[in-house]
Amino acid sequence: MSNVPHHISRQFDNELETIRSDVLAMGGLAEQQFSDALEALIRFDVSLAEQVIENEVKVNSCEVSIDEECVTLLARRQPAAGDLRFVMAVIKTITDLERIGDEADKIARMTINLAEKSVPRSNYIGINTMGVFVRDMVRDALNAFARMDSQEALVTAGKEPESDEQYAALLRQLITYMMEDPRNISSFMDAVWVARALERIADHARNICEYVIYFVEGKDVRHISIEQMEDEVRGG
Amino acid sequence: MSNVPHHISRQFDNELETIRSDVLAMGGLAEQQFSDALEALIRFDVSLAEQVIENEVKVNSCEVSIDEECVTLLARRQPAAGDLRFVMAVIKTITDLERIGDEADKIARMTINLAEKSVPRSNYIGINTMGVFVRDMVRDALNAFARMDSQEALVTAGKEPESDEQYAALLRQLITYMMEDPRNISSFMDAVWVARALERIADHARNICEYVIYFVEGKDVRHISIEQMEDEVRGG
Repeated sequence: MSNVPHHISRQFDNELETIRSDVLAMGGLAEQQFSDALEALIRFDVSLAEQVIENEVKVNSCEVSIDEECVTLLARRQPAAGDLRFVMAVIKTITDLERIGDEADKIARMTINLAEKSVPRSNYIGINTMGVFVRDMVRDALNAFARMDSQEALVTAGKEPESDEQYAALLRQLITYMMEDPRNISSFMDAVWVARALERIADHARNICEYVIYFVEGKDVRHISIEQMEDEVRGG
Repeated sequence: MSNVPHHISRQFDNELETIRSDVLAMGGLAEQQFSDALEALIRFDVSLAEQVIENEVKVNSCEVSIDEECVTLLARRQPAAGDLRFVMAVIKTITDLERIGDEADKIARMTINLAEKSVPRSNYIGINTMGVFVRDMVRDALNAFARMDSQEALVTAGKEPESDEQYAALLRQLITYMMEDPRNISSFMDAVWVARALERIADHARNICEYVIYFVEGKDVRHISIEQMEDEVRGG
């Protein structure tokens, strides 16, 4: 923005800063929704689960309004280089945040189903452990976005394969329970959907990390292994 | 583009046309992958399933290269109004096409699992029916994109709730099978994942239709019901 008058450049910076803080607010909301859904699941708290379902629209409307801000900024300010990469990273990130909100909503719905049934809570200990792991991944991905820290993004993305392993182990466990207790298969299926939602949320957290790396390093690190990603970022 | 010299305007049009045809090629590829995965599932054809898995990277690399084209176009040409909406619609659409490719890959993997097991094919008739329904939705969504036809997009998006009903019915059926035949639960779970993949693909087809409507009508119709969407489009 070196060739434009100072006051226009400052306005532009303000607009970018508004988008940035709106994404962080949306991230905070999605994280809260996910965290509340997990809390509701752990405590079989139906009213908290209902609150998550009610708040889902808020995450959706953030996505719509931030997309609009991005289109307006692209049309008016014609950003280039890093600013353009930032806008691209935002457009992608909010899609993943919206999906995290969707998955939180699904967990809340399954929690209500599970609370009505007679499945022992001890069967969900593995899910709670994975839930905490994935919640930390989401928090770290959002921190990486807030600070545009590609190293933290790399470390956080690197945890995603572990969430896949946790998911596979949980699934094996749940299938064993089903075989032992076929009458409760539909309750166990609800638990399967929760596990699946957690696995998807970990994917979304990884995606957000990839957009941070794209913005900071100017490199598209999607569709490659964690090892290749490390080479791309650390290799400079 | 009325204030720029004719030859620049034509170059710009060519670049937009290239992006458009690249998205259509990517759409054709994702559709083919999905269609092959279904065919492999119906015929328990392991070698076709392996081919789908092998080709998955092609869909991914389309996403990366079209994203790059969009960034370059945004930086160089600074599109406004309809052209900018088109680029936004493309950026969103290719994410959904990539996910359709992912789901086709999952169906292919489940097909290989299922082919190794002794589950009667008659158990999958419901899945095949839903598969054909969703395949038609994907084809129609891509046709709507190719012609930027918001009416066709509306009709196709309107079929998504029916895919949800088919999915729910399939799931109930598969859970019944599991309860009757608990030893084969893990095979039935593979069928559950196929059903789930189909449900997700229908969502992606609906998303693509929503971007077509966004481009043509200039209205963001995400996160609203099909009825509200009809009002938005037909109400003008």
